[in-house]
Amino acid sequence: MLQELSSNITKQNFGYSFTSFKDNFKFGKLNHIAIVVPDLQKSAKLHKEVFGAECSGEIEIPEHGVKTVFAKYENTKVELLHPLGEKSPIDKFLKQNPLGKVHHLCYEVEDLAEAIVHVKRMGVRTLGKKPKIGAHGKPVMFLHPKDCDGVLIEMEQK
Amino acid sequence: MLQELSSNITKQNFGYSFTSFKDNFKFGKLNHIAIVVPDLQKSAKLHKEVFGAECSGEIEIPEHGVKTVFAKYENTKVELLHPLGEKSPIDKFLKQNPLGKVHHLCYEVEDLAEAIVHVKRMGVRTLGKKPKIGAHGKPVMFLHPKDCDGVLIEMEQK
Repeated sequence: MLQELSSNITKQNFGYSFTSFKDNFKFGKLNHIAIVVPDLQKSAKLHKEVFGAECSGEIEIPEHGVKTVFAKYENTKVELLHPLGEKSPIDKFLKQNPLGKVHHLCYEVEDLAEAIVHVKRMGVRTLGKKPKIGAHGKPVMFLHPKDCDGVLIEMEQK
Repeated sequence: MLQELSSNITKQNFGYSFTSFKDNFKFGKLNHIAIVVPDLQKSAKLHKEVFGAECSGEIEIPEHGVKTVFAKYENTKVELLHPLGEKSPIDKFLKQNPLGKVHHLCYEVEDLAEAIVHVKRMGVRTLGKKPKIGAHGKPVMFLHPKDCDGVLIEMEQK
């Protein structure tokens, strides 16, 4: 009897917790759209001189194998990415898409650990088991494009 | 002499006007990211139940050959697109990208006519000569992906 009761409470708690968690969880702002580009200076010029965005200088991030320029728009940013070094993780992507292509969408989340538990419970796979420190110094986790309409999604700790 | 003066004034005016135009022009908000998806209901569920976005119902737009759901995030929207009818303009795109793929990025502009003159002066081609009424009832113009890092850009009258 006690065991039954305990089991019910656990189920109820889990059920409640799950529902509440699921109902309350949401992505925050779209932090940036990342685009892999064949010519970083030319792309920075496009975003600055044609689209009128405020652009950062070229930033080299050797530990992530990328060079990047951020273009700031009214409500979000575009991150222009170009391979850096011999083993860049975006080298193959650029070879397959020599004109350039959207690489990922990055959303902010209030609590990355909670977000990971949530998306996994909902059946969305993550790339890797643990968060990594992203190119901008914050913990990030990527979601599997096959579970997200072919789009690579990055969740970034706010 | 008069002719020379007139010519100089014209050049100066053009130069001034061009510089001023170029310096002042800028894209407004990123209105939405459009993603072509293989299963609209499943994608709407992903954005609503997993990502926590506020989602519209399914909207059919026969004149544009699409069914769409809008997912609203804190600072922008995602437009989920699926072919409608036999001659949908995104039918081939979905066949080539059966998992789904980002289709275009839409930025708001204050004055679409001015924006078109500006981007053309800066060497970016438009798709078509005149603006069309977009899927959401506003005048729009698309920019050639080959001039924009392989990314299809939509400019929408604010």
